[in-house]
Amino acid sequence: MVCGVANEKGEWLAKLTIPTKHPQETMPEIIAFFEEQQIDSLGIGSFGPLDLVKGSSTYGSLASTPKKGWPGYSLLGAFAHLNIPISITTDVNGAALAEAAVGAAKGLDSCVYITVGTGIGAGAVVNGTILEGLSHPEMGHIPVVRHKDDRYEGNCPYHGDCLEGLAAGPAIQGRWGKAGVELAEVSEVWEMEAYYLAQAIATYTYVLSPKRVILGGGVMKQRHLYPLIRQALATQINGYVKIGDLEEYVVPPGLGDDAGLTGAVLLAKQALVQKGLKSTNL
Amino acid sequence: MVCGVANEKGEWLAKLTIPTKHPQETMPEIIAFFEEQQIDSLGIGSFGPLDLVKGSSTYGSLASTPKKGWPGYSLLGAFAHLNIPISITTDVNGAALAEAAVGAAKGLDSCVYITVGTGIGAGAVVNGTILEGLSHPEMGHIPVVRHKDDRYEGNCPYHGDCLEGLAAGPAIQGRWGKAGVELAEVSEVWEMEAYYLAQAIATYTYVLSPKRVILGGGVMKQRHLYPLIRQALATQINGYVKIGDLEEYVVPPGLGDDAGLTGAVLLAKQALVQKGLKSTNL
Repeated sequence: MVCGVANEKGEWLAKLTIPTKHPQETMPEIIAFFEEQQIDSLGIGSFGPLDLVKGSSTYGSLASTPKKGWPGYSLLGAFAHLNIPISITTDVNGAALAEAAVGAAKGLDSCVYITVGTGIGAGAVVNGTILEGLSHPEMGHIPVVRHKDDRYEGNCPYHGDCLEGLAAGPAIQGRWGKAGVELAEVSEVWEMEAYYLAQAIATYTYVLSPKRVILGGGVMKQRHLYPLIRQALATQINGYVKIGDLEEYVVPPGLGDDAGLTGAVLLAKQALVQKGLKSTNL
Repeated sequence: MVCGVANEKGEWLAKLTIPTKHPQETMPEIIAFFEEQQIDSLGIGSFGPLDLVKGSSTYGSLASTPKKGWPGYSLLGAFAHLNIPISITTDVNGAALAEAAVGAAKGLDSCVYITVGTGIGAGAVVNGTILEGLSHPEMGHIPVVRHKDDRYEGNCPYHGDCLEGLAAGPAIQGRWGKAGVELAEVSEVWEMEAYYLAQAIATYTYVLSPKRVILGGGVMKQRHLYPLIRQALATQINGYVKIGDLEEYVVPPGLGDDAGLTGAVLLAKQALVQKGLKSTNL
């Protein structure tokens, strides 16, 4: 878990990085850090699934997650005694906000941020605002049309062969018997991976019409995936929607590992503005 | 084409309905109607695809459409001489706006409006605002996983077996050799149709997390589709996201055939507000 404190100008005053263990172990340290720093507001970009249903009695709590001790844990509750404005969303929504503000989608009022690692998650900014509705998006779980040569059954416990079940890191490992990093030279692996990720981007494009798609996460360290994905995307969309230069449309993150923390600081600032305690333009 | 003039209270002052022929035939009549009515602003909810790329020199023009004479036709240009604020979006975005304002999603700040007829189109409201980005969504063209018993090749000229290519009215006719209305009693037809539409709703749910999904259009006159779709949706989502009562989540339009026109009036009102000529809350 990455924590940080920034001033109004966005300059970092303090940072803390600690592994995500059981909440009883992890959270006291984080709470103490923020108490000591005497923060004015807090932004949280959390792993999910989260309850973000407005008016829900468990708003701001984690839902079913395999991470031990976290299901049902209320992140909002943990910081309630600080008595400051708190804004919470998913880690990927926070990253999307940050990339749109100061990163790879700087100056654009819409983008999708996708991370491909042990799972697949995506967040989005629409009309300059984080995309939420009934709750938060779960874009990693969209159904996908199988690659013609793919015999792997998929490993999503809910859907089997949804996008995450076929294209996240563990699916690569499950299908080919080795981790992605050990398969860097095997072209079939990346042709198939690009097919699935391009299909996801095509779907997000048809549904959201974003101005830019930012693609990051551990699997995307295989940089040769980017041109393969752009090529597959062009084939799949087949000229139906005009998206201009694909090298400008599908891009790596601009903020690298800082996107999450930067997004959280922007959320903290928004929380102050929403409470009328601050009028600064974001 | 359905045209209407309303006053500030939303009361209808005049209406005009004429068939969509060649623009040289259709448009002069529409322009004369609005000139005579001396309107203060205009809202357009148009069939697509439209160029809605802000800053594009062909903003507000129709793109490639099979409708004769319309490709490249500028709807904005046709009304430019009226010298009034004009707001334009897709017909389905306009309908989504209307349903969220006064229809089946009244009081909600997000919804998806899907129409299933000769094509499949969808619009959405996100955070109270119409969903646009690079341009407008094209949700009817998402890729879909084929039904296990479906051997029909699909009829989308761009993608073959995308959602529209497999589930719009012409696909039903193409697959089963008869129009949907003649197949009302054949359960396989509607089980397959429900499978595809539920898959689309699952995808829109994962990507947008809307508060309500409104499903209309000619094909949905087969009212027995609604329970079939809700059932298929529950099976496909498999408890992964909590969407509460499906009878409240997937619903028919509240405004019927009036959604488009009501949406256009709301757009016209928004155009005035945006120009600072009116401060009324919508």
